[in-house]
Amino acid sequence: MSDPRIANLARTLVNYSIRGQSRETISIGGNSVAEPLIQAIYEELLRKGVYPIVQMTPERATDAFFELGKKHHFNELPSYQKSLIRQLDGTIRIISDTNTRALSGVDPKKQQMLSKASKPVREQMLKKKWVLTLFPTAAFAQDAEMSLGDFEDFVYAATFSNEKDPVKAWHSLASMQDRLIRKLRGADEIRIKGPETDLRMSVKGRRFINSAGTHNMPSGEIFTGPIESSVEGHVYYDFPVCVQGREVDGIRLTFRKGRVVEATAEKNNDFLNAMLDQDPGARRLGELGIGTNRQIQRFTKNILFDEKIGGTVHLAVGQSYAETGGKNRSALHWDMIKDLRKGGQITVDGKVFQKNGKFV
Amino acid sequence: MSDPRIANLARTLVNYSIRGQSRETISIGGNSVAEPLIQAIYEELLRKGVYPIVQMTPERATDAFFELGKKHHFNELPSYQKSLIRQLDGTIRIISDTNTRALSGVDPKKQQMLSKASKPVREQMLKKKWVLTLFPTAAFAQDAEMSLGDFEDFVYAATFSNEKDPVKAWHSLASMQDRLIRKLRGADEIRIKGPETDLRMSVKGRRFINSAGTHNMPSGEIFTGPIESSVEGHVYYDFPVCVQGREVDGIRLTFRKGRVVEATAEKNNDFLNAMLDQDPGARRLGELGIGTNRQIQRFTKNILFDEKIGGTVHLAVGQSYAETGGKNRSALHWDMIKDLRKGGQITVDGKVFQKNGKFV
Repeated sequence: MSDPRIANLARTLVNYSIRGQSRETISIGGNSVAEPLIQAIYEELLRKGVYPIVQMTPERATDAFFELGKKHHFNELPSYQKSLIRQLDGTIRIISDTNTRALSGVDPKKQQMLSKASKPVREQMLKKKWVLTLFPTAAFAQDAEMSLGDFEDFVYAATFSNEKDPVKAWHSLASMQDRLIRKLRGADEIRIKGPETDLRMSVKGRRFINSAGTHNMPSGEIFTGPIESSVEGHVYYDFPVCVQGREVDGIRLTFRKGRVVEATAEKNNDFLNAMLDQDPGARRLGELGIGTNRQIQRFTKNILFDEKIGGTVHLAVGQSYAETGGKNRSALHWDMIKDLRKGGQITVDGKVFQKNGKFV
Repeated sequence: MSDPRIANLARTLVNYSIRGQSRETISIGGNSVAEPLIQAIYEELLRKGVYPIVQMTPERATDAFFELGKKHHFNELPSYQKSLIRQLDGTIRIISDTNTRALSGVDPKKQQMLSKASKPVREQMLKKKWVLTLFPTAAFAQDAEMSLGDFEDFVYAATFSNEKDPVKAWHSLASMQDRLIRKLRGADEIRIKGPETDLRMSVKGRRFINSAGTHNMPSGEIFTGPIESSVEGHVYYDFPVCVQGREVDGIRLTFRKGRVVEATAEKNNDFLNAMLDQDPGARRLGELGIGTNRQIQRFTKNILFDEKIGGTVHLAVGQSYAETGGKNRSALHWDMIKDLRKGGQITVDGKVFQKNGKFV
């Protein structure tokens, strides 16, 4: 018998995240390692009367694509991809890497070309219903320094898939976040204090977004884009940023008038500064997010989970999200996570909003 | 290391069967059990500059579709399927059943509805480049009463994938078949004799088609549609017909003026006669095929291989192929195989064309 938590996760994705309706066309993308989850989602979509499109790729297709693809494979999408996206009502995408560093040796130019070529399709995709989730693999467990069994427990707890009624649990988290957002209405200054950290910023007139499992599964965060010129102070990030097969660890940033004027990392310092120098927006904050998912308590080097750790905030340098009112533009969006569970504090216009990772 | 014969088969399919060209869009369809072959074809298509579309489905997707699908899933295709087929230059389809009887319990009405709904897309598909092949699985080996290893040897021998230059071997088979077809030019009466068998038919004005691995991999047959009213005599089929999870064994047919006037089977006799009674064309021959593939010597209950056994003929009741000049119309097309390797003979206008399965 297959893991009943997989069927539970499939039900959450179809009935809560993507809200599949009869006669809609919804794609399920992922590699073959995620087949048990793909099958379960396929079945649940059929039950709802949806036309499911399975876009399952061989485990090593992406490696082959970057190794063997010709120039036109990277800078021109075939026409069917453009027409397909127009006919989709939604997409469910599953990440299930069997090697999180598989693309370490790929020329970044190929990735940039492909990213540019697929931008119109990606933008179309984001206008439809969409959700991103993860199927537990040994590679993710390895990054998290856990056994696969323990990592599965972690993933299914974080997605509420081990609960009797996961959809109810997600609705309840959404309501809790609504209450937090209501408390933040009209707020101006947010101040984050903690070990080696004292950072102030204004969120005046900006919107907080309630992220409760419709686009990311799991989710559990509220986020906004701070006033770009308002950020002042210094911050020490407890967790490394893991990107492009590299870990940037022990990051310290100092902001003046919204701009990072000093940036150091204990590991990969040069890489950090190169990334911040790529365009003017890369040295400004694009996002302030507050993690609320109490089922995520440990760092696993996977941003889908890490940024939602209940009791942390994440501050992303680079591109902001338009729906928050944020105006920062950059090719970068790097989430950096600050743990507030031990001696941290968030105050809003001078009043304590969260202490030691717990909302007051 | 994966089986080098898989990469060989992939090269044959891409370079010989489908002749992939730069910037074409070609789909690869199959279930996840065939992943090693799908990956190898994907890589070979990339090398040729083709845009590959992988349409890999979970092993149990079809079971779920028939079990859980709503009425509209069977009688209406989603619009993207229609637009996708228009944008394809070719399709490579792999069968890789993990259970050849998985659909035994499915209501045949659902299959008929789906077959009808997908007819326009299927017809479009057949106007493009297409090839059908098989990836060896335990289920096919089981039907063939072989171990998986032996069945793999059989499949890769039949597709010439264990040869140094499979494409050259296919070209050579095509030339040999061309010579046979030239010998048959202007032929009128074909007579097939063997144990319990003496059957005459006219092929006057009809065309023989050279099937040498472009649409079926493996192939190795030449076929035509006999003059519908000309078939006279009786035939005993040595191998069972395996269809819809049933085996019809020990079939004997008697033809008068082209029509089956008597049909008996030692096993599933009622089913045989019900099938022949479904429409007027079902009691007439639609095809005479002559198998030529010397690497296929044993019956495996899989028509992709069986009808190509070197030294056999197959006589299909029902629908004929338009390209042969055949005019028979029927919802049925049942290939029945007659072994001529022991005491059989084909004569063309009184001259021996094949004896004991060997061309003279």
